[in-house]
Amino acid sequence: MLQERTIRIIGIDPGLRRTGWGVVETVGNSLRFVASGTVTSDNKLDLATRLRQLHDGLTDVLRSFGPDEAAVEQTFVNKDAVATLKLGQARGIAMLVPSLAGLPVAEYAPNAVKKAVIGVGHGEKAQIHMMVKVLMPKATFDTDDAADALAIAICHTHHRQSAQARAVYANL
Amino acid sequence: MLQERTIRIIGIDPGLRRTGWGVVETVGNSLRFVASGTVTSDNKLDLATRLRQLHDGLTDVLRSFGPDEAAVEQTFVNKDAVATLKLGQARGIAMLVPSLAGLPVAEYAPNAVKKAVIGVGHGEKAQIHMMVKVLMPKATFDTDDAADALAIAICHTHHRQSAQARAVYANL
Repeated sequence: MLQERTIRIIGIDPGLRRTGWGVVETVGNSLRFVASGTVTSDNKLDLATRLRQLHDGLTDVLRSFGPDEAAVEQTFVNKDAVATLKLGQARGIAMLVPSLAGLPVAEYAPNAVKKAVIGVGHGEKAQIHMMVKVLMPKATFDTDDAADALAIAICHTHHRQSAQARAVYANL
Repeated sequence: MLQERTIRIIGIDPGLRRTGWGVVETVGNSLRFVASGTVTSDNKLDLATRLRQLHDGLTDVLRSFGPDEAAVEQTFVNKDAVATLKLGQARGIAMLVPSLAGLPVAEYAPNAVKKAVIGVGHGEKAQIHMMVKVLMPKATFDTDDAADALAIAICHTHHRQSAQARAVYANL
């Protein structure tokens, strides 16, 4: 039989202005809300300082909640190169901070996140947020970004369980 | 009369695979080559680990050469969103690391760098590298990225001198 231990996962929805984060715990198939929030950067400051604000905020969150694994949304902005570059810079920080803390960092495309939470690879933001509440009734989130981050964390719990199950079957 | 003190500047040309860096010293109008090199990430590893490799490499360079100010190229890739996102992620790290070390971080568009080094806002890479050697005969660089990083550092010495001169005239 599988040894079931509690795993704490942080999901991160990166953005230069607002980076959402959500921490969940999973034991076997059960899912528990731990915390969520939003790290912001001051758009009146220069870019390097704003990236440092995201770094410092996420570092504090990791220190406070001590997750075991991280998952970050693999977003593509098709609007324009400037917006994509901005998002990329914030996303670099969102990937770096958990890696510096020694956590494995998984990436999920938006449709994988939707599929994990609402069962299909497309859907409205409101539908995702509703399902986050259905899956974790005690979940609270202050912004859309925090709700998205919780959805990313949920997505990771599904994928890591499948990977674990595959590993177990492979060893039977 | 102006107190002329030695200022050490690091220029950084960010890229996920190769991030070039170049350190120069300036006293008044004189320019001196200090060091240059390339920080690389292993493209067989996952993105978070690669970003950590860039972070660790640049952190080591800052520790070894202790620059006072940093300048990073403001690159735009128009190829595609995936390439722009990749560059953005590397660029996020290139801006973050000097900011974490307490350095001011300036940004320069590629044509500003060309104008500072070769006198006009356009030109071949080879022309820029030749002018880096003319301006600093002792300069050595192992890659194009390191040469570009030296050009970015030279660009910053010009702009900070103009800013300083304007401040002096304003106070006359």
